[in-house]
Parts: sequence; structure tokens; C-alpha cells
Amino acid sequence: MSMLSDQLLKMERHNSIFESAVRGLPLPVCAAFGDAARPRPVAFAASGRVLGTPDDDKVLASFPHSVRASGNAVLVSAKPKRDVPRGRRVAVLFSGGPAAGGHNVVCGLKHVLGPDNALFGVRPGPRGLINGNLFEITEADTARVINTGGFDFLGTDRTKIKTNAQFERVRETCVEHRLDAIVIVGGDDSNTNAAVLAEYLFRDVKPDGSGVQVIGVPKTIDGDLQIGDLLPISFGFDTATRIYGEMVGNILQDMCSSLKYWHFIKLMGRSASHVTLEVALQTKPTITLISEEVAEKKQSLAAVVDQIAQAVAARAAQGINHGVVLIPEGLIEFIPEMNALLADLDDVLAQHATEFTAVVDAEKAAFVEGKLAPANARLLSSLPAHVVQTLLAERDSHGNLQVSLIPTEQLLVDMVKARVKLIDAKAPFVAHCHFLGYEGRCGAPTLFDGAYTYNLGLTAGSLILDGRTGYMATVTHLDRGGVPRAIPLTGLLNVERRHGKDEFVIMKALVEMDSPAMRYLLSRRAAWMAADLFCSPGPRQLWGHAAHQMPVSVALNSGAESLEFRIG
Amino acid sequence: MSMLSDQLLKMERHNSIFESAVRGLPLPVCAAFGDAARPRPVAFAASGRVLGTPDDDKVLASFPHSVRASGNAVLVSAKPKRDVPRGRRVAVLFSGGPAAGGHNVVCGLKHVLGPDNALFGVRPGPRGLINGNLFEITEADTARVINTGGFDFLGTDRTKIKTNAQFERVRETCVEHRLDAIVIVGGDDSNTNAAVLAEYLFRDVKPDGSGVQVIGVPKTIDGDLQIGDLLPISFGFDTATRIYGEMVGNILQDMCSSLKYWHFIKLMGRSASHVTLEVALQTKPTITLISEEVAEKKQSLAAVVDQIAQAVAARAAQGINHGVVLIPEGLIEFIPEMNALLADLDDVLAQHATEFTAVVDAEKAAFVEGKLAPANARLLSSLPAHVVQTLLAERDSHGNLQVSLIPTEQLLVDMVKARVKLIDAKAPFVAHCHFLGYEGRCGAPTLFDGAYTYNLGLTAGSLILDGRTGYMATVTHLDRGGVPRAIPLTGLLNVERRHGKDEFVIMKALVEMDSPAMRYLLSRRAAWMAADLFCSPGPRQLWGHAAHQMPVSVALNSGAESLEFRIG
Repeated sequence: MSMLSDQLLKMERHNSIFESAVRGLPLPVCAAFGDAARPRPVAFAASGRVLGTPDDDKVLASFPHSVRASGNAVLVSAKPKRDVPRGRRVAVLFSGGPAAGGHNVVCGLKHVLGPDNALFGVRPGPRGLINGNLFEITEADTARVINTGGFDFLGTDRTKIKTNAQFERVRETCVEHRLDAIVIVGGDDSNTNAAVLAEYLFRDVKPDGSGVQVIGVPKTIDGDLQIGDLLPISFGFDTATRIYGEMVGNILQDMCSSLKYWHFIKLMGRSASHVTLEVALQTKPTITLISEEVAEKKQSLAAVVDQIAQAVAARAAQGINHGVVLIPEGLIEFIPEMNALLADLDDVLAQHATEFTAVVDAEKAAFVEGKLAPANARLLSSLPAHVVQTLLAERDSHGNLQVSLIPTEQLLVDMVKARVKLIDAKAPFVAHCHFLGYEGRCGAPTLFDGAYTYNLGLTAGSLILDGRTGYMATVTHLDRGGVPRAIPLTGLLNVERRHGKDEFVIMKALVEMDSPAMRYLLSRRAAWMAADLFCSPGPRQLWGHAAHQMPVSVALNSGAESLEFRIG
Repeated sequence: MSMLSDQLLKMERHNSIFESAVRGLPLPVCAAFGDAARPRPVAFAASGRVLGTPDDDKVLASFPHSVRASGNAVLVSAKPKRDVPRGRRVAVLFSGGPAAGGHNVVCGLKHVLGPDNALFGVRPGPRGLINGNLFEITEADTARVINTGGFDFLGTDRTKIKTNAQFERVRETCVEHRLDAIVIVGGDDSNTNAAVLAEYLFRDVKPDGSGVQVIGVPKTIDGDLQIGDLLPISFGFDTATRIYGEMVGNILQDMCSSLKYWHFIKLMGRSASHVTLEVALQTKPTITLISEEVAEKKQSLAAVVDQIAQAVAARAAQGINHGVVLIPEGLIEFIPEMNALLADLDDVLAQHATEFTAVVDAEKAAFVEGKLAPANARLLSSLPAHVVQTLLAERDSHGNLQVSLIPTEQLLVDMVKARVKLIDAKAPFVAHCHFLGYEGRCGAPTLFDGAYTYNLGLTAGSLILDGRTGYMATVTHLDRGGVPRAIPLTGLLNVERRHGKDEFVIMKALVEMDSPAMRYLLSRRAAWMAADLFCSPGPRQLWGHAAHQMPVSVALNSGAESLEFRIG
């Protein structure tokens, strides 16, 4: 036993057989970076394409340095960088929820900066930048974390740098650590923050009067940070949807083995339904709900429930008593009448807080119903008791309900069960609920995410060495070799009214009803409901024939000819 | 887009990129079967090892033909089978919950029976045998299902063949389809049923007075069908624990990235804690509960809760506000005082059914507490409201509560939260609950399960061609090439009193406290709680260096020198 226990002991601290093997996996690089074994930085040039939003004037007023410097022009990799600067000190941090591939961004940065420049890790997230918690990242570090999942190398947090005091602390961190640049790996909010920081640090930070560069890297498993052909997808989306896709495929297989269960599966992904759409395209389940479609059709909750119940009854009539329903996490917010109820509830509970607290639990629902608009009261009384309980629960500090706490999958099961009984009392309906969430954020990256993020790191590092600031790194043409580019962050900013004041935001990309991916779903969905045509995507492979896949929705939306991605 | 939509359409019905690739994966075979490309049947001989239980006499009385024929002797593959019979008609069925590799059992059977014998699939499960629902399995079928997960090729069900009418129907199916043999792929109950059927069909079924052979194949993800070195593990366990292991590894990675959550993860596996033990050995989580240990130490629920809460507080004192707790599905039943409460509750609710129904919901708990033994009443009143509600819910037809309905993970979170507040009111404790279950039963088999089940199929087919009945197929020495063997089912039977009468059962294997696997956990568990030493097993690989793993607990318990399995 001693040889084996020795092997087991060595596997502790991120040394599973898989983790050890995957560290040696070669990663392809875009032709622009030269040799994959020793990637070199590129220089960038304006591509002639200029971005803008209806709020350009307000953006110019608030971001004068950044806009004047970039002209909001998209950059494209032009030629190998000559006279590569030395002695640059660059910091990198993760912001927001974890996503697979973050570690490879760091590795790409480290490799392209090379031994003549220094890379520092910030722990954890923006909070670490405010607190000045930095450490130098070594080659040994990157050799250890390459191709591993999670953000645990640096940690992450959700601090939004917004007060003057916070900006001042960040400037102090830059001065104290003599930083030349900061790379922020994050989603839409974090990249907005990167734009604000780029403007704030544009000049007068260093003794010579120059500034600190800020570059964003597009991360989010939700897929809601997409910008047409300039940013086909954020990193982490592929890995998360392949993890969820495998689990949904397994459950579909179980459904056809056990022949007696309906599975209602809620999928993480915040407001947008990109994750659900992608998992549906991978697996072909019985029923797929897409929030954006529900909103566009202005469906009521009863209509959504009836649609599922009719399918249950129709399949039962053919002796099929099983199925899988995919539910996007944000569904509830996209049902107009539910939105109205939630807003009304927030108001009523805020206005009658003291009285409400005094009412005994059993009578709280009746008390509230008396105060709601009649349509809202009717809707509330139609909901299962456990959901009503959640809706009447404590509000957060803003007086809002956390919609993610509503167990949409259980709500639908309860209401579908009642509805099925009315349609066909004899139709069997036994349902299980699932929520696939956290397990998808920190899995080991797919080959797609691993290669994509490594090249995003190479791109971000190249932008820094090329003296750029206020850009988001991107790699386009993912099915045709890959082209490093840079998106001017100020070209993406819109103004949104939040809590009574203007705020700059990068708009979340929702699923578009006329996108090729959505149209493909619509063209096959009825067939998938009528018969079990699913396939099982299986565990993601890092070696062998099944390793070179890109997300189906990305392939469809970018007009790719196959699911094979090609970088290099 | 048309090339891509064409590719997508072809992927429907089990043709994902992974499924297409994995069908071509070569499977190794034990040396006894000769060439892997064209495996040949073996003949068996008694190994000199004889099995038995304290109930041997009762078994002999009820299974006279089987016991006399086998002498309860273990068989071992002896030499290539000469004069391989032709024209044999063999049926195969799945019984109970799905497990990865079932399709490969069918493929192994088909390949070893060869074109001169016929293999029939029974749909679904034992019910299909009673109803005579058989179809002939072709080479095209096996080429399609090989290495795919689930039991969907044949379906499954849980019908237990026990009434005289059912046995008679099975005999009729045998006669009608001129069957020579039946292979039952299932767990402990299904293999007990196989023993009963083997005896029932031992003779006088066919016109010449001969019988129909019955062979069992050991399946269950729970791992509770283990027989020392004769059956190191049932199939499906490796795949399920690798799926759960990946998810737990991902969540561990998330915990160290987000740095603010405790995750309580309940793992499927029925009564025994084999699955939880294996996943813990793979991932090294903060806390691992093992039901058998809780029972041995006679721990109270409060003690289990306190143990977790102390760990939460101790880590919080060091600024660590995250962790992962693994919980076996059957935990509640192994806490003696919970068992006493459940039994008392069942009695009270049965005795006072009418009164209880009349009591209003809000007073039901108080009503019941007045009738319970004082210790049980105290325990009930210490439980969170939602658990009390579950405990007072409707009983099944036997008047028993379905223990699996108790949300153990949520129960522990609620009680730990309350306990942590008492120990250290300032210790942060934000927890998420998970249940990993159905997604593990139907995943694509690991290379271990794929190879193991294919060889189990070759073994089962060889036993049939060698004229054997009443055996369970097994393959031993999984780290040293693999040896096909056969276990006489009657040598495993014990008598258990169920519902007032004697029943034959194969005892479920529980985790043994002094097994090498459990001892290894105990030797490292404190270190894993003190610091985050986890590793992430990653997605299971079918190609490359990380593909050749066997379960850690099986390797430890069988004295293997490494985690590498070797068949062939």
C-alpha cells in the first residue's frame, strides 16, 4: 500500500492525475504571435472600424482622454512588436464570478511580457487593488496553474471601485508598486470599471507625468458579454455550457433508461438565456424555455405552464411519461406579469412594513393581497405556497427581492402538476428538480477556453507593450486561425439611469430572436418535443478527436462551417 | 450555415461528436479471451474456493438444484472453450437504476456468443421478461451503443419477480422464445432474483426436460455490491464517482476562488457511504461524513452538527470562511437517535391517524410531540421547521417515511448555522446546498467501466456457452490483467426477516471502518480540514494519459500499487 499512498499524497494540492497531465497540454497560438513554444508580442494598428453608442457625447464628456486617444477605433494586430519595452510592471486581477480559463490569461500575459518585464498578481480582485495586496508571479507559478480551472490562484471579489477614496487608494497602489499597467479580467461591469479606471489613471500617475494603462479581458460564463463579430463570446461560457451540457445529456439518457421521470433543470446564466440556448443546441431536450422569447411574446406564467402541461399530456397520450425541461435562471424577470407583481410587492411591503411585521404568518398573504392591484393579487394567489413564502420574505438593503432565490424549477413543477391534472387526470407526472450552477464556473477549461484565454492573455500583454490603454482584448476568427484585436471600451458605453442617477454601462447582450442560433432552435424544437432525438455531449475531452469543439451557438452566429475551432 | 446545420442534424439521436468518437475506442480484454479484436469464449473450472453463509441449510433447502450443481464453488476461467455450442438463444435485461457500462455488457455478450448464437434484448427490465417483450440484438445495434452511457437501449424497471403467476409468465416467455439462457444485469436484489429464477428454471422448461440458465452481472453505482477480492466493485461505481468527483472538485475550486461560501453536498449512494468515501479520496474536501462511522460512534445529530460548526468556527478564526462538506445520502438512518425518532413517529402517526388529520397544520408538531417518547419529542422540536414538515408528511403504503425525501444537506446547514452563532457570533457562514444524484447514473462510462463491463459481458456469455447457471459473472485482478471468474449466487444468500417472513438476500456491503480505504481517509482527514489540500479530478478522459484510472477506494482495498487499472 505504501507506493499507492505515496501517489495519493502527491496528488494533494492540485495534482490529480488529470491536473498533472493537463499542464503538459500544448496550446495553439494565433499566427500573429509566431511560434507557440515562444510567443512574441504584436503591435496594433487602427482597423478603420469605429465604435459608438447613442450616448457618445456624454461618454466624450466623461472620458475625454480615452476617447481622444483611441478615437473609439477598433485595433487589429499588425506586425510583430519591435523594440519590445523592458522593465514594465504589470498587475492582473480577477473580478466577479469565476470562469474557466482565467489562469491561462495570466499565463499568456506572463509569457508575452517575458523575463524582461514583471507581472504581479492582485489578491483578491478589485479589493486587492484597493488594499495594495500584490505579489510577483513567477514562471513556476504559471507552470503550476496553466490549464487548471477556477480563479483560486488570485481569488476574486465583486468590489466596484467607485468612491473617490477608492480611486485614490488604487492610485496609491500604482505609485507604491510602480505599476505601468493593470489588466482586469471580468464581465460587463468589470470592463466598465476598467474604462473608468483607464480614464482616471490616464496621466499624472508616475513621476514623469505619464499614466497607468488599463486593459480589460472579457470573462463571463453567462455569455452576455458578446459584441457581434468583434467578440464572438466571453471566456468561460464554453466550459460552463459543456459541463451543464454533459449533465443534461446524462439526465436525458437517464430519462430514456428509467422511462418515468420529468426533469426540470434550471441553468445558471443571470438574465440572458445564452447558456440555456447553448445547452439546448448541444443536447436537444424535450422543452427549452428562452426568457427573451417569453418576453417578446408577452407570455403569462399561466401560458408558460400550460405550454409545458400540454406537452406532458400529449406525450402521456403516446405512452411517453418522461421528458427534460430546460429553464433559464432569469425566466421569472422576463414574464411581464411576474415583473409587475414583484414591483407591486416591493412597494406594498415597503409602505406597510410595520403593519406587515405584526400580521401572523398564516395571514400575511391575505394581508398583502388586499393591498396589491387586483391582477397582481390574483397572480399571487395562484402561486404555490412555498413560492408565496419566498416572495413575502425579507428584502435586501435596497428593498428588492433577490429574484434568483425564487425556485423557478419547483414553481413550474408544482403549477404544471396541477395543470396536467386538469388536462388529463390520468397522465402520470413524476418530476425531479435540478439547478446547475456553481459546478460550471470552476471546471477545468475546455481546449477551446484554454486556447482562447491563453491568446487573450497574449493579446492583453501585447496591448500593454504597445502602449495602449482603455481597450478590451479580443480574439476573432476563432474558426479560421484567430486574429488578436482590441475594442475601445469607451465605444461600448451607454448611459443608464440607476438609483436616480446616470451611470455608464456596457449593455448586456440578450439572446436575439432572429439570430442564427435562436432560429436553429426554433426550427428543431417541435421535433425534439415530439420524439426523443437528444444526443449526449459527454465529458469534455482534452486529447483525441472530440477535443476541438467550439460552442454551437457561437459557430452558428459567426457563420462557421463546422463546430471545429481553429487557432493557429 | 448549411454545412453546419447539416452537421447538427446528424448529431441528433446519440451522435454527438463525443458519442461518434467513443464508438471507435478500442477496449482491452483479459488474456483468457484471446485477441481483443475477436474475443473467444472460455471454459471454467472450480477454483477450490467454496462460499457459504450462516444460512447455508436454509439455502440448500430452497435451492437444492443450484447448490448441488455448483457446490457453491467459485469458478475460474480455465482454457479456451472447445466445441463452442451453436444455436443458443440468450436474453439480456437491465434491472433497477441505470449505471454506466450496461451497454458494454450487452456488446461483450453479443461478441462472445458470435454469429452462431442469438442474443435478445428484453424491454424494459424484469417487466419485459414477464410480458415477453423481446427483440433480437444485431451487430449494428452493438456498434451503435458501445461505450455509450445509460440503459436506454433496453430500458429498465424495478419489478421484482416473486408471485407464482409472475414465475409462470417468465417460464412462458422462455418457452415461447425458445430461450436457453437469461442474463440479469442488476444490483443485490436483482442478483438475488437471478438466484431464485435460476433455481425455478433449473430443469423441465425445454421439451427435452432441460432448464434455462440464469447468469447475473453485478451493477450498482452505490458500490454496496462488493465481495472482497472476488468482486472488487460493481460496475457503474467508477463512472458515477468520477462524475461526482469532478463536480465536487469544481466546487472546491470555486470555494477557493470566491472565498466566501460553504458548500454542503449530498451524494447519491443509498445506505452505504462508498460513494462519499470514494469522492472524498479523489478530492480531499474540508469535511467528510461517513454514515457507518457516525453509527459506530453512536453520534447524535447534535454531535454531528457540532463537529461541523466547530470546524467552521476554527477556520473562521483563521480568516477562512469557506469549505466543502460531503454528506452520504443515507446519513440520517445511521444516526441512532434519528432512527428512534423516525420509528416512533411512524407508530404515532399510524395510531393517531384520524385525530392527526383533524389537527390544523400549525399545531400538528405540538400534537405529535405530546405523543412521542420524551427524548424523541425533544429531538423533533430541535429540528428546523421545514424538516419537521417533511417528517410529518404523508407515509407510503407501508406507513413508512421515505428517508431520501429528508433534505439532509439543508437540515445540516440550518442547524450548523444556529450552532455557529452560539460558538462565535461573528463567524461568517454563507452556505449553498447541492445534491448530486441522477447526473451520475447515466454518464458515458469511464475507460475503467467501459473495459470492465465489456469483459463482464464476455464472462457472462462464456458461462452460458459453458453450460453454467446460478452464477454471477466477475472479473478480478483488475490491476494485473484481469481474470474472468464466476461466483455461485447461492453462496451469497442470507436469510432476513422482512414484513414478518423469511426472505433470501445478498447482504449490502457497508463501508468497513478498518478497510484500507477508510483508514486512509482517517489518516488525512484532519489535515484536509486544517488547510485546503484538495485536488480537482477533472473531466474523465477517454484518450490520453489521464484515461487509465481505477477508483481510489478499490485500489486501496485491493492492495494495488497504483491507480492504474490494467486489463489485458
